[in-house]
Amino acid sequence: MIDNYLTDFLLVIMNFIEKLENSWKISKSLLQVGLDPNPTLFPEEFRNQSNSIFEFCRCIVDATAFYVCSFKLQIAYFSAYKAEDQLEELCSYIRNNYPNLLIVLDSKRGDIYSTSKNYAYEAYERYQAHAVTVNPYMGFDSIEPYLEWNDRGIIVLCLTSNSGSSDFQFLNLSNGEPLYLYIAGLIADKWNKNSQFGLVVGANHTNELFKIRKRIGNAMPLLIPGIGFQGGNIKDTVDAGINIDGNGIMINSSRKIIYASSNNNWMEAAAESARDYCNEINNARCEKIF
Amino acid sequence: MIDNYLTDFLLVIMNFIEKLENSWKISKSLLQVGLDPNPTLFPEEFRNQSNSIFEFCRCIVDATAFYVCSFKLQIAYFSAYKAEDQLEELCSYIRNNYPNLLIVLDSKRGDIYSTSKNYAYEAYERYQAHAVTVNPYMGFDSIEPYLEWNDRGIIVLCLTSNSGSSDFQFLNLSNGEPLYLYIAGLIADKWNKNSQFGLVVGANHTNELFKIRKRIGNAMPLLIPGIGFQGGNIKDTVDAGINIDGNGIMINSSRKIIYASSNNNWMEAAAESARDYCNEINNARCEKIF
Repeated sequence: MIDNYLTDFLLVIMNFIEKLENSWKISKSLLQVGLDPNPTLFPEEFRNQSNSIFEFCRCIVDATAFYVCSFKLQIAYFSAYKAEDQLEELCSYIRNNYPNLLIVLDSKRGDIYSTSKNYAYEAYERYQAHAVTVNPYMGFDSIEPYLEWNDRGIIVLCLTSNSGSSDFQFLNLSNGEPLYLYIAGLIADKWNKNSQFGLVVGANHTNELFKIRKRIGNAMPLLIPGIGFQGGNIKDTVDAGINIDGNGIMINSSRKIIYASSNNNWMEAAAESARDYCNEINNARCEKIF
Repeated sequence: MIDNYLTDFLLVIMNFIEKLENSWKISKSLLQVGLDPNPTLFPEEFRNQSNSIFEFCRCIVDATAFYVCSFKLQIAYFSAYKAEDQLEELCSYIRNNYPNLLIVLDSKRGDIYSTSKNYAYEAYERYQAHAVTVNPYMGFDSIEPYLEWNDRGIIVLCLTSNSGSSDFQFLNLSNGEPLYLYIAGLIADKWNKNSQFGLVVGANHTNELFKIRKRIGNAMPLLIPGIGFQGGNIKDTVDAGINIDGNGIMINSSRKIIYASSNNNWMEAAAESARDYCNEINNARCEKIF
């Protein structure tokens, strides 16, 4: 009991990177499960259930929590279904039942300072997220309001896993550096004074992932989507992305885990898929370190 | 009565740019009022009212509708207060009472294709917006789902009015062109095949606004924030931004109109402020054309 109180107390006073390091250590996992709830893909038992989005996600959380360091909740899937209340309930469920795991709200917002204050409040107060994804295009003052919550994380889009990443992110600047690398460097050198920042880098860009880790050093964590359906390779991703401590990354998989099966065994299938990813990542990590 | 039916029918079959041209023609205004509802700034009468966000905005809409071509609704101000239902109600109110005016949902989203489909559904179906603002950083496939609603508009951030616009948007590319201008050109040349695109360009960047209009030609409309508190000059903005037909822009003002007064006369003050902006813009327009 005293141990629990102590853990609760420590979690409250930890900053974002300490919380993340704690979750890596306790979970022994670098896997992040992405919760992208699409009711048309839910198992039969959730049809005609008014809070099916919460219930489906809760089951996935319970099935996979043992194998992950964090959950990423994609807000668009909730807002398209008018399910903001279910997102609140889900965040609260994860916080109460898995206090050592991190909640990343994937919302990719970016706006002028006065508007971003509202987005920060939404992410950190309404949803109680430990970290939030943001878009860098509007520059520092669009991200500044998030820093007021100095125990929370801000994970900036750097090089994304979609095909459109080649439209602008890869553009070479006049100094010869591609835009994505310039952004990574600026954040590492100038913005990350309070260790609140991380970067999103797609697993399908292994060479660039290596360059980014080299450029930013060991401090900043990377959120890495793009394994699974988007084709990223786990071994290469781990090799290129982990830091000197053998962590520093959250490798995200969504659909391959949460929709691993639509049969009666869907929860077991999700757990199994998460376990396999977790092990594959850890094997790659061991090979890299030893 | 037949006239009303005919208008309703025509509005249904018009595409985005036709609807916008219709709203410019009927309203004789290039002004857009930005609805950024902040309850701490509301007049006394709205305190302790459960749907105060809707009610305040509805009053502003009624007070200013005569002087505007469109309303821009900033979603962050609703979501921070758990007021998505009030945003739905407000969109529905504007659609029903001012069918010739356009609703721009200012959400600045951008995500991978499968996620953006949800954001497009949210903007166009849940909120029934005529147009939505989006962030270009993730490239074409992050914006592609919006094109499926081929009567709606997509207004892409190009050069924003905040100080952070200098962090990345002004960066020179290896071909010598600044990023914002490259984005404007790509959209005009490649993406805008169905006349659904517009650009956001801040009024405080008059020289760049001129360059953008020159680069994209007359077709694409510009949403121009940054007058009022952000210091943009109306005459220079109109000179630089309007197209050959003397329109092509929506000049947005939010706080200077909706919080023009916190006294009993707040609705009259909002109407007066909107009327003054509308007239100032039209005077600048006449000077430029004749």
